[in-house]
Amino acid sequence: MPEQSKPHVAVLGLGRMGTAIAAAFLDAGYPTSVWNRTAGRADALVARGAILASTAAEAVEAGPLVIAPLLDHDAVRQTLGSIERVLPGRTLVNLANSSPEHAGELAERVAGRGADYLDGAMMALPETVATQDGFFLYSGSERAFTSYRRELEVMAPAHYFGTDPGAAEVHDLALLGTGYAALTGFLHAAALLEPVGTAPAEFAPLAARWLRGMADFLPELAREAGSGSYADGVSTVDLNRAGVDSLIRLSRNSGVAADVHEPLKALLDERAADGHGDDSFSSVFELLKAR
Amino acid sequence: MPEQSKPHVAVLGLGRMGTAIAAAFLDAGYPTSVWNRTAGRADALVARGAILASTAAEAVEAGPLVIAPLLDHDAVRQTLGSIERVLPGRTLVNLANSSPEHAGELAERVAGRGADYLDGAMMALPETVATQDGFFLYSGSERAFTSYRRELEVMAPAHYFGTDPGAAEVHDLALLGTGYAALTGFLHAAALLEPVGTAPAEFAPLAARWLRGMADFLPELAREAGSGSYADGVSTVDLNRAGVDSLIRLSRNSGVAADVHEPLKALLDERAADGHGDDSFSSVFELLKAR
Repeated sequence: MPEQSKPHVAVLGLGRMGTAIAAAFLDAGYPTSVWNRTAGRADALVARGAILASTAAEAVEAGPLVIAPLLDHDAVRQTLGSIERVLPGRTLVNLANSSPEHAGELAERVAGRGADYLDGAMMALPETVATQDGFFLYSGSERAFTSYRRELEVMAPAHYFGTDPGAAEVHDLALLGTGYAALTGFLHAAALLEPVGTAPAEFAPLAARWLRGMADFLPELAREAGSGSYADGVSTVDLNRAGVDSLIRLSRNSGVAADVHEPLKALLDERAADGHGDDSFSSVFELLKAR
Repeated sequence: MPEQSKPHVAVLGLGRMGTAIAAAFLDAGYPTSVWNRTAGRADALVARGAILASTAAEAVEAGPLVIAPLLDHDAVRQTLGSIERVLPGRTLVNLANSSPEHAGELAERVAGRGADYLDGAMMALPETVATQDGFFLYSGSERAFTSYRRELEVMAPAHYFGTDPGAAEVHDLALLGTGYAALTGFLHAAALLEPVGTAPAEFAPLAARWLRGMADFLPELAREAGSGSYADGVSTVDLNRAGVDSLIRLSRNSGVAADVHEPLKALLDERAADGHGDDSFSSVFELLKAR
């Protein structure tokens, strides 16, 4: 197969992520225009071959693919006002932190201009752009994702979650929630260990190891939750109720805030009260999901 | 250095863990006696060279190191009654699921018989015994841990947390708590994703990847929590309050139980109200720890 020609890429917003992204496209051999609201951030990129645009519209006019790693929704809304005129026929990839509602609003506005809209969430750090250590989530125009998948993968492995423009943000929040819960559990556990003389830094490697074990266990947990069949679990509701009870008792005895694990206790107690004590732990999913 | 002679090891209790442990000692070339409350579990071990004892006391009399992976505290208490007479001068390693209080009680009883007591918690599965994939936690007699470290490492990498006999159980609960929090966060996140058409099994690999990233982040979080210095954090209380607020709002809008993240929201709100909004996320540790 002959190599496809590389489309012109415009990068709007040269914060730490935007700068890393523009550098990744330059490294991958793409003609790249850059623009930032305040000047002076593009010098190193220009030295590497980037074309500095004096307005956002000028950058967008240069080519079909517009990547916008702007700061937040307000910055996107403002910038959109100045590029709407030149949007028709192009694809806008919005990488700002956003909400499902905002994504829906922008998708409609961009489609109204005859352009394709992809909403993206960057699960990466500036230093993991263009590596396999981060990943980006997308939703919105399927045509845009399919046409530009190769370009999106220049930034990070790309995952697409359908045409609902808010879906990427929902997945973003779902991942954040998983992480928040883990970090909160760790800090609570570290608080339990101070009275027995173990400092947080001493506990961290063990806890990290344990969390990696939990990560390995997620596919099994997901299989049970997805099937709604909880009869064959090794780790039952009743067994884990006893564990969570011990944990809450220890918290109270140690003078450590106990309420971190109260929501799980309530879920396990409700399952047991409903006669599901012998079901797998994962069956608390039945109480969590939308009704 | 000449190879040290290998002490005789007695394994009391041949459940799935006990059987794996006895097999590990046999594989490592230790003279090994085994005993189980009900007969018939030892045949395969005897075929591999284990000495089958007809009573627990007979097994204990064979050598200095007694490993007891019994079912629970009641089983330990019962078995202890039948071996107390032959305990003097030996070391008992209690691997049953227990509580800090029970560990203290047993340590006192065993010391009263002129024997050393180690309390252990097995963070492993039968199939990870004698590999680097699990680990055991210990507390109690320092002399016992130091003298028999080589033997303890036959079962799994060994971590010692001091002479307070309950410390291993506290560390066990701290790890369980970290894991519970992560799994609950994952199941809640999976519930958020069902309405946008992503099944738990589709989400699991991304969430696992994210959790491994959180595991990598724990040393940094622990460093902040241990120092009590939260001024240089990149990820502030206010930034994460906004994230948790979005998460709770999305939960409510989706009809998904929102209370899983309420304890974290309360902690972040309290930090912000106390004027610590610009501190690092990890500063919620100040509200969690014992006062």
